[in-house]
Amino acid sequence: MSSIFQKIIEKKIPAYIIAENDFCIAFLDIHPIALGHTLIVPKKQTDYLFDLDDHIFVALHVFTKKIALAIDYSVDCLRVGMAVVGLEVPHAHIHLVPLQSAYDIDFKKQRLCLSSVAFEKLAQKIKKNIT
Amino acid sequence: MSSIFQKIIEKKIPAYIIAENDFCIAFLDIHPIALGHTLIVPKKQTDYLFDLDDHIFVALHVFTKKIALAIDYSVDCLRVGMAVVGLEVPHAHIHLVPLQSAYDIDFKKQRLCLSSVAFEKLAQKIKKNIT
Repeated sequence: MSSIFQKIIEKKIPAYIIAENDFCIAFLDIHPIALGHTLIVPKKQTDYLFDLDDHIFVALHVFTKKIALAIDYSVDCLRVGMAVVGLEVPHAHIHLVPLQSAYDIDFKKQRLCLSSVAFEKLAQKIKKNIT
Repeated sequence: MSSIFQKIIEKKIPAYIIAENDFCIAFLDIHPIALGHTLIVPKKQTDYLFDLDDHIFVALHVFTKKIALAIDYSVDCLRVGMAVVGLEVPHAHIHLVPLQSAYDIDFKKQRLCLSSVAFEKLAQKIKKNIT
């Protein structure tokens, strides 16, 4: 079955997309635990991140680094943290989370509510800061 | 100043080492939030993970994948999660955390206490399962 991420990849459902290439896509988490919380997803649907082929795994992480630096430049934070849980959606993904403290990677945290305009502006800002 | 991780890399202080290569080292977290909680550290002291040169960043992640699969095979867990916080020690590192639930990546969690014999046995077990 197609995961929700597959539907975003195939543009069947909308998302605040920051960037994509042949192997992966980055878009804003719609229920962010911090402003700028972004998901990095391989286009090939694989449940477990560590089951990805090495070349896709590497491409995914090089892409993640680029997006992380753009988020860091776009959002007020101490730095950008990274997390992989992989028990929510059966499609591997990396969370990039702007941090204000060492305890900010906490998926039990209250989610932020943003308007679609605010999401879109944020996605555009991060996009512009990709080098 | 030399970080605590640098001292482990240089074997100036002991650690339950699982594996190492030219670029990185893996050892058990001495204050684990889950059994098998492991740190992956680049040998070149760099504060922020995303400031690593691409070739070291890639080597670190390929190594991380290998260790994650060995942990998964060695410890009773649903899968192995990954986290990078980077606000505690000024030397980039990746946490690999065996998960029982989607909320197990939580650095406020009570840390486990293990004997040095238990740590050593666990490190050896994971080491044997590296493919």
